[in-house]
Amino acid sequence: MKRRDFIKKAAGGALVAASATTAAPAIAARKRFNWKLVTTWPPNFPIFQEGVEKFAKDIELMSDRNLRISVFAGGELVPALQTFDAVSQGTVQMGHGAAYYWAGKVPAAQFFTAVPFGMNAQGMNAWLYQGAGLNLWRDVYKPFNLMPFPMGNTGVQMGGWFRKKINSIDDLKGLKMRIPGLGGKVMAKAGVNPVLLAGGEIYTALERGTIDATEWVGPFHDQRLGLYRAAKNYYYPGWHEPGPVLELTCNLQAWQELPREYQIMIETAAAAANTWMLAEFEAKNLLALRELKQKYKVEVLEFPADVIKELRRLTDETLEEEANKDKTFRQVYQAYKSYRENNDTWNEISEAAYARALKL
Amino acid sequence: MKRRDFIKKAAGGALVAASATTAAPAIAARKRFNWKLVTTWPPNFPIFQEGVEKFAKDIELMSDRNLRISVFAGGELVPALQTFDAVSQGTVQMGHGAAYYWAGKVPAAQFFTAVPFGMNAQGMNAWLYQGAGLNLWRDVYKPFNLMPFPMGNTGVQMGGWFRKKINSIDDLKGLKMRIPGLGGKVMAKAGVNPVLLAGGEIYTALERGTIDATEWVGPFHDQRLGLYRAAKNYYYPGWHEPGPVLELTCNLQAWQELPREYQIMIETAAAAANTWMLAEFEAKNLLALRELKQKYKVEVLEFPADVIKELRRLTDETLEEEANKDKTFRQVYQAYKSYRENNDTWNEISEAAYARALKL
Repeated sequence: MKRRDFIKKAAGGALVAASATTAAPAIAARKRFNWKLVTTWPPNFPIFQEGVEKFAKDIELMSDRNLRISVFAGGELVPALQTFDAVSQGTVQMGHGAAYYWAGKVPAAQFFTAVPFGMNAQGMNAWLYQGAGLNLWRDVYKPFNLMPFPMGNTGVQMGGWFRKKINSIDDLKGLKMRIPGLGGKVMAKAGVNPVLLAGGEIYTALERGTIDATEWVGPFHDQRLGLYRAAKNYYYPGWHEPGPVLELTCNLQAWQELPREYQIMIETAAAAANTWMLAEFEAKNLLALRELKQKYKVEVLEFPADVIKELRRLTDETLEEEANKDKTFRQVYQAYKSYRENNDTWNEISEAAYARALKL
Repeated sequence: MKRRDFIKKAAGGALVAASATTAAPAIAARKRFNWKLVTTWPPNFPIFQEGVEKFAKDIELMSDRNLRISVFAGGELVPALQTFDAVSQGTVQMGHGAAYYWAGKVPAAQFFTAVPFGMNAQGMNAWLYQGAGLNLWRDVYKPFNLMPFPMGNTGVQMGGWFRKKINSIDDLKGLKMRIPGLGGKVMAKAGVNPVLLAGGEIYTALERGTIDATEWVGPFHDQRLGLYRAAKNYYYPGWHEPGPVLELTCNLQAWQELPREYQIMIETAAAAANTWMLAEFEAKNLLALRELKQKYKVEVLEFPADVIKELRRLTDETLEEEANKDKTFRQVYQAYKSYRENNDTWNEISEAAYARALKL
């Protein structure tokens, strides 16, 4: 039954109920929805999966249980890396993950998560919500029948754990490192042998020396994986994923069939979860970092300036090569670059100047 | 009529309506609320007042017009600086402003907006949402019958416009500067004569030389006020308000009378507006800065290291003095400091290290 038909029927028939409402409360006809949301995260994956569950709960409460979203972790309903297709085809209504997981299908999607030496969380939020970034993202996903929303951000991810100190760019040559995506491509140009490993395999590989280095997320998740005790390790700040945006996707037809009130609930709850997750990452990372340093004596170093400069040069080279392969990638790259240039100038006299002032 | 009584009546009487719903949609009894929200902002004040109006609109849509919040700018219903009292006394249900406006009444409230050399927006969000900051804030506001929510952040505010270059701490001595709050107290210790002026009075005062310097917000709002053409001016990065949190307050009884679904709508829409406003500030500031530099040839300088170090020393002195005057101030100060210390350590190898890498 269409919503309009039902309202007519109810209005014609419900005389008793209608009179009961004249005092104060309203009787509203509300359509019920039972939706499914599949994620790319392991069950109970802290913050990532938690944030999605909080989002679904918020919507269930706001809609007085009329929009119920059942959340499934990666593999529970569909394999983690098939969530894009599952939502695109309408097998389920919603998905949660990170746009750069779909780089094989949509190379340009990487700009909506993070690129090496790209914008941090604050920059990404401003670009997406206000700087035309979100419209661009929606254009890019439309052919796939998907409506994306920013929902979560990990903050600056760490550069990773290395079994030996990196004193020059030559020290990277021949290293086997677990590092996926564009970061991996850049590292390959620097002579690294990038290895793909799922989260569950990293610890053992590093402990046994099958790999010489790995990145994962940040202090909190890295500590949970035990990376600090996989070997005598040096821990380096990040450069390859400076503020990865997590994404909510919604099947386009499912979205269009939703009454406006539920659409706004989803949009609003996703933005709230975006803030909630970044806050959670920051608050957990700072405690984990303290423990890693104080209790486990982890040595945090910085890459030498020459290494950073060379990685940045190789990043520009990599992005240019990718842009030559894919028209949409180039289009998004240009929009991103031009926004980002002004953002850097502003950041330089706001956040960056303030960070310098705090160090004096 | 209490919600429970209504539900009983409706359930007993509405047989026709009940049968009409068995097909698909649900009939829910929804109480209607017409609330008033007063702000401390001038009518149409960009981003600040806009963000509040978007918040009210989101809630109206999500509640299918059952929770309607009429928004009034400062002076439209109550004077701007009486919103705290108006919400506290229940004259209206909600207010929007910044906690440090109530420093005269609640000195500790300043920590929930911004303090000189304090945490930036990202740090404040993490502390408030996850680091026990919000619970502390709620404890502090409870005796005033208020429930606070973070709702908006301006990002790092600029240090202000100066008619002459500041080359040493001595150059500050005797300057008349429009700078309110703790920043003003710190400046007074440095020999500045802090002046209180409303937004509308600043331009003329600076142009006529009645004041020698002023701070306002950031490039976007400063440009709208015309400060770049009030005199030959130098523009300095900020130190006194590194990430001011804007606040939503709700009268405690009004809050407790709301059904849970509307409470979650308010909480969620406030968090979304928090993100929306910061994104808007960042995206507007970067464009305004470009125009100020390119079109109006504004010279952006940095305070010399000695000036910053001295201002920081005077900030610590000021906060210590305030803590000696007020027990709650000291209590919040200690909680803030201890969270903030770990946050700085983490920030140093995440955001700050990344900002340094970008400059290489």
